[in-house]
Amino acid sequence: MTKTISTSSWLKPSLDWLLIFIPIACALRFVPSLNYPTALFIVSCLAIIPLAGWMGKGTEHLAEHLGPAAGGLLSATFGNAAELIIAMFALSKGLQDVVKASITGSILGNLLLVLGLSLLSGGLKFKRQKFNKTASSMSATALTLGAAALLVPTIFHHVAANVAVAQGGWTAVKEQHLSLAIAVVLIITYLFTLVFSLYTHRDMLSAEEMTGGAADIGEELEHGGEHWSKGRAMTVLLIATAFIALIAEFLVGAVEEAGKTLGLTEIFVGVIVVAIIGNAAENSSAILMAMRNKMDLTLGIALGSSLQIALFVAPVLIFASYLFGAPMNLEFTLPEVFGVMVAILIVQQISSDGESNWIEGVQLLSVYAILGILFYFLPDTHSAIEKIVIHP
Amino acid sequence: MTKTISTSSWLKPSLDWLLIFIPIACALRFVPSLNYPTALFIVSCLAIIPLAGWMGKGTEHLAEHLGPAAGGLLSATFGNAAELIIAMFALSKGLQDVVKASITGSILGNLLLVLGLSLLSGGLKFKRQKFNKTASSMSATALTLGAAALLVPTIFHHVAANVAVAQGGWTAVKEQHLSLAIAVVLIITYLFTLVFSLYTHRDMLSAEEMTGGAADIGEELEHGGEHWSKGRAMTVLLIATAFIALIAEFLVGAVEEAGKTLGLTEIFVGVIVVAIIGNAAENSSAILMAMRNKMDLTLGIALGSSLQIALFVAPVLIFASYLFGAPMNLEFTLPEVFGVMVAILIVQQISSDGESNWIEGVQLLSVYAILGILFYFLPDTHSAIEKIVIHP
Amino acid sequence: MTKTISTSSWLKPSLDWLLIFIPIACALRFVPSLNYPTALFIVSCLAIIPLAGWMGKGTEHLAEHLGPAAGGLLSATFGNAAELIIAMFALSKGLQDVVKASITGSILGNLLLVLGLSLLSGGLKFKRQKFNKTASSMSATALTLGAAALLVPTIFHHVAANVAVAQGGWTAVKEQHLSLAIAVVLIITYLFTLVFSLYTHRDMLSAEEMTGGAADIGEELEHGGEHWSKGRAMTVLLIATAFIALIAEFLVGAVEEAGKTLGLTEIFVGVIVVAIIGNAAENSSAILMAMRNKMDLTLGIALGSSLQIALFVAPVLIFASYLFGAPMNLEFTLPEVFGVMVAILIVQQISSDGESNWIEGVQLLSVYAILGILFYFLPDTHSAIEKIVIHP
Repeated sequence: MTKTISTSSWLKPSLDWLLIFIPIACALRFVPSLNYPTALFIVSCLAIIPLAGWMGKGTEHLAEHLGPAAGGLLSATFGNAAELIIAMFALSKGLQDVVKASITGSILGNLLLVLGLSLLSGGLKFKRQKFNKTASSMSATALTLGAAALLVPTIFHHVAANVAVAQGGWTAVKEQHLSLAIAVVLIITYLFTLVFSLYTHRDMLSAEEMTGGAADIGEELEHGGEHWSKGRAMTVLLIATAFIALIAEFLVGAVEEAGKTLGLTEIFVGVIVVAIIGNAAENSSAILMAMRNKMDLTLGIALGSSLQIALFVAPVLIFASYLFGAPMNLEFTLPEVFGVMVAILIVQQISSDGESNWIEGVQLLSVYAILGILFYFLPDTHSAIEKIVIHP
Repeated sequence: MTKTISTSSWLKPSLDWLLIFIPIACALRFVPSLNYPTALFIVSCLAIIPLAGWMGKGTEHLAEHLGPAAGGLLSATFGNAAELIIAMFALSKGLQDVVKASITGSILGNLLLVLGLSLLSGGLKFKRQKFNKTASSMSATALTLGAAALLVPTIFHHVAANVAVAQGGWTAVKEQHLSLAIAVVLIITYLFTLVFSLYTHRDMLSAEEMTGGAADIGEELEHGGEHWSKGRAMTVLLIATAFIALIAEFLVGAVEEAGKTLGLTEIFVGVIVVAIIGNAAENSSAILMAMRNKMDLTLGIALGSSLQIALFVAPVLIFASYLFGAPMNLEFTLPEVFGVMVAILIVQQISSDGESNWIEGVQLLSVYAILGILFYFLPDTHSAIEKIVIHP
Repeated sequence: MTKTISTSSWLKPSLDWLLIFIPIACALRFVPSLNYPTALFIVSCLAIIPLAGWMGKGTEHLAEHLGPAAGGLLSATFGNAAELIIAMFALSKGLQDVVKASITGSILGNLLLVLGLSLLSGGLKFKRQKFNKTASSMSATALTLGAAALLVPTIFHHVAANVAVAQGGWTAVKEQHLSLAIAVVLIITYLFTLVFSLYTHRDMLSAEEMTGGAADIGEELEHGGEHWSKGRAMTVLLIATAFIALIAEFLVGAVEEAGKTLGLTEIFVGVIVVAIIGNAAENSSAILMAMRNKMDLTLGIALGSSLQIALFVAPVLIFASYLFGAPMNLEFTLPEVFGVMVAILIVQQISSDGESNWIEGVQLLSVYAILGILFYFLPDTHSAIEKIVIHP
């Protein structure tokens, strides 16, 4: 779910200035004498941020032309398109650990960093901010469900790895079937969630909250007056998507080399770095909404986006991995699973009373810092766990 | 907690028709030429369903003659009698893993399947359904307590198994003493819970909610007018109990053979199959109440029944296992413990706002499906875990 | 957070009578012919209880002279001084496992034993007691954050221990750096919490709740009229602190010998025995407040004290351990981490509705009993886990 800000916004200049990094990235990638993977990685990261913003803007404007239900569906589906595109490229290069880490990181980033900065910024301006509990509690439950689903393959592996294959023990094929079955359940649940929020209970939830608030945020941000034609919206969407695909290819190609140079593990890059990049646009919108005391939209962006990652992006990546001939499973490492559980627990505690204040923002950021420290110190655990469990 | 439905109910025909399977089960069991364990298992499963219903009906009518406190106690104690009888037979045959799996399965079945189907059915008819938070939150806390208690022996085993016995390491006797001590704490807590719900805070909780709503459901279901004499109630109760005992013996005798034939593991049969059978009657009552918008009764059945399994049935089975000379402990497998924790977490999230809608039903069923997939893929983990931990 | 009771209180006689154990402890320690470590341990335990009470009383009276903000800060910082002093002595003797166990035990003792006894005592007098949800939910969130932080080193150890050091595996130095980084995050979060509760949201929380209610409890307890001069308050504080330091030295010196004689493990002594001693004064204040239906103060004592242990005492002990040249890390055993998680979960369930009754007290005590049983049966797990993970 990526949102941008109108020309009148104080944030826009900083983001659109970053478009300058697109030609720099191209130069680093295609001029043979400029072979600096680390620089390419950093420049690509910076270039993706404004592109994700423009993609979100195009989605919102197109959604306005499609009527509420279809528009909501479009926003919900394209909301995490930038993340999806990056992940697809990484999958095609066999970087499945980075992809899985970026799924976890995207959930953590939205729930802890985006929401934490928003509650803090909003809370410094307003002593007590209120929001609608129904939408946030529904999303929190969906997230718990998603977290439970992502835990299942890890538990299966842990238990079944110690049993002989003849007695029903772990095999890669079983793990794959298990992950596939869970992905199917998740995406069916997601479809029902869309029916609920866009159709049967649209009025109760003011649907936008569930889909990241596309329409409302659009209105909110565009009150300067800008209205895009259908053609302009589609053109912006297509161009932004094309550039994201290009830059994502650079980014993924350079990630391994850059990680080594910077002394960062694959899991840290996936969980922390890629996730911050991918959510930069959401971040600025969510903070802006919080500072305007539109907390329903802030929670809609942070929780709605996490929900989509868990119930929609993760299963779609599983299905897509079959197209690349290198099936990905849903097994996550213990620290990832722990991080997601803690994040959901804290968010639920904070959101269950329908009120927020600045210390709750500090608490979310504190948890994010603690998890960041953990991922910084960890060795590359995906491969580590593989070693532990399969050859004990 | 088993409830039946009056002659006027649209559900009854389907359940009472199943009584036809009693003579078929007897034939399969006693006619030597009809030695088909799988058929016997399936037929016994089907025959138990209406019997459990009649047992519940007898209990309710007898309870009406005993006054509120004693009646409530009777309902609460006999509520899970069918499950108890099946478990006793299984214990006497040494099938402790099936018994333990059916404890977990019964909790999961009530919290996820029964409640999920009820919220979905009710939610399709009513946009938003309300219920009393006090009762549901008290039950949810009791369930968390119960889940924590069931985790303790698993944690003890995990930690102590790696320590030499001389230094205080794991022994089967210690595990047994630990389980016994916890069973005592659980049943004392259960007695206090009964005092609370039937005596000191009867009015606040409208006690029925805590005991599965026997009396109210009785009234609700019998508004056709039927009133049973004490003698009739006792006769029905006795006959139903006797038949359940008979059929339970068939069922337990055939379970191992049937599981092998159907390619199902013991743990899947215990957690999923036996639990669905044992809760079929609750299921139909809870759904019926939800469709009449009596959500307090629906939650009373689903949560109250789970509470009784955790705080009453589980400890009673521990004590009973000593009578059979084959003491059972309270150690559960990691996937069982995980399933119960997730189920309680989700139910608490859903019940804490005192409102429900159809998507919450879908979310519960989705979690049930995910756990069902896990148990389907798992090897027989009770024995698997034994192997891992004791001979590392 | 230690509170005492005025001369008019019915509890005071029992606590101040215990001062008689100070000279007895001195005799046992310094008279060579009276070398009974177990007796010294028990007598020291009893002598600490009234001293902790007098220290709390001195702190409260001094706080009154300092104005609300500085007074609140003093209360908050000196609140757990007795625990801190005992822990410092234990650290200086290299008893790091006892220190870590007493951190866990203090949190468990406050959340389950102190709060459980209070809700039970209050609930037997009042059918339904109400309290302010804002303060309790803020503390509960801070506790979840603290528990997550304490889990991180355990998870790091578990994952990294199986990786070769060359590939980023576990080393004692890394574990130490990780613990230090987390301690820094915790204490910064604690400082923000103080700013929130003593400064920006003082009115919303009636700050006392967050700092254990020093001022209000003072007023509440002293309505007999006693008012201390600044000099008297400081003198009492100094004398009590000096005696606590003396007795703490006895207690720590005798703990190992006494544990062996009584057949108790180090972890049981730390988690259960030392924690009960250290929280005895809080316990009596919290119960007294509950019986006067001042539930905000009761929750302030129990939750505020736990919060300080997790976010302030634990990091301070990490920093202090460097002064003693024997750095302590934040790695806790699985059963400790499990106990803290369960305690926080249950407390959150109980406190989230802003109401309490006696069965909630029973539920908390039941969980405490179950955890007590676990720690009684466990071998000394700190060392046990060391063995498991490092030499697999």
